[in-house]
Amino acid sequence: MPRDGRPARLRLQQAAIDLYERHGFDQVTIAEIAARAGVTERTFYRHFADKREVLFDGETGLRDILVAAIAEAPATLEPLPTLLRSFRAAVPLLEGNRRLSEPLRRIVAVTPALRERQQAKTAGIIEALATALRDRGVSAPTAALAAQIGMAAFSHAAAAWWADPGQDFGMLLGDSFEDLSTLTAPLAAAPESGARLS
Amino acid sequence: MPRDGRPARLRLQQAAIDLYERHGFDQVTIAEIAARAGVTERTFYRHFADKREVLFDGETGLRDILVAAIAEAPATLEPLPTLLRSFRAAVPLLEGNRRLSEPLRRIVAVTPALRERQQAKTAGIIEALATALRDRGVSAPTAALAAQIGMAAFSHAAAAWWADPGQDFGMLLGDSFEDLSTLTAPLAAAPESGARLS
Repeated sequence: MPRDGRPARLRLQQAAIDLYERHGFDQVTIAEIAARAGVTERTFYRHFADKREVLFDGETGLRDILVAAIAEAPATLEPLPTLLRSFRAAVPLLEGNRRLSEPLRRIVAVTPALRERQQAKTAGIIEALATALRDRGVSAPTAALAAQIGMAAFSHAAAAWWADPGQDFGMLLGDSFEDLSTLTAPLAAAPESGARLS
Repeated sequence: MPRDGRPARLRLQQAAIDLYERHGFDQVTIAEIAARAGVTERTFYRHFADKREVLFDGETGLRDILVAAIAEAPATLEPLPTLLRSFRAAVPLLEGNRRLSEPLRRIVAVTPALRERQQAKTAGIIEALATALRDRGVSAPTAALAAQIGMAAFSHAAAAWWADPGQDFGMLLGDSFEDLSTLTAPLAAAPESGARLS
């Protein structure tokens, strides 16, 4: 790939994705990625710690948007509606990244080492959501639970979006949080139920 | 540690936990674990694939109990009450393992490589729960969402249990699923809400 005017960081990501898809993650060296991007190995390492990190660059941007949206939500908004609002704020980023994230999903799905890294990244985002909720005065246990549930609903919406790119991600998010509500409704009907969240 | 009549597998686990706690996970070799357990390195590898796996042996037993309990739940029980029932079935195992799992938690908390493995193990349990729900006729997307939410509620209860060992884990599980219900209640109040789960 010639130096095409895009920043080296973007060229490295595109080169890595192309090579991983063609040859399999394990078969590709950092030297090959750098060569394809038209930079030196040293430049690769200036941008990314290793072969895996080059794929997960978008996570930081996603986390920053989510955390900022949580901080800006009205103070009276409950934890899960706050998270729904923050996920909606991230829709433009996710839509913009789709061209890179679609092949990335395929590569991660067939590479165990990448799945572990992705799970760790997701855990990092859940922790960031919980911290942002605590900063709004939500108790630590409730913030942790809400962050996990919110991320589950987000993944549920994302799965539907990947399955059918023609759908509107913002709408899918709304549907997903409705599904949460439907799923938990039988718990409220149980005899032992009652509000005790602190 | 002398050969004390317990199976080699248990002695290896105890030896690993003792050594990891004393010296840090990264500093301990498999040779040292085997020596402390009074077995050869070859015996270690007959039981465990690597230094990390020796810590996560309980996960398989937990998963088996959860999956069996889901299969045995009344056919009409909704997904989340089914999961609550399965977690309750696992309480005796978790209480029995507490002596080993308490130091294990401390070791995992300070060892990034172990945290990634633990996240992968948790993801494996979530996948097993989702599969067990699908086997009861729950649609794949709903099963995946319910499994993630159920595991979040389980972790919420487990965190409370670790914080105060004097509490009854079964009761904490009930409280945790009530918290789920309380957290999601504001979603049902939103104007866009309505049952659309398939």
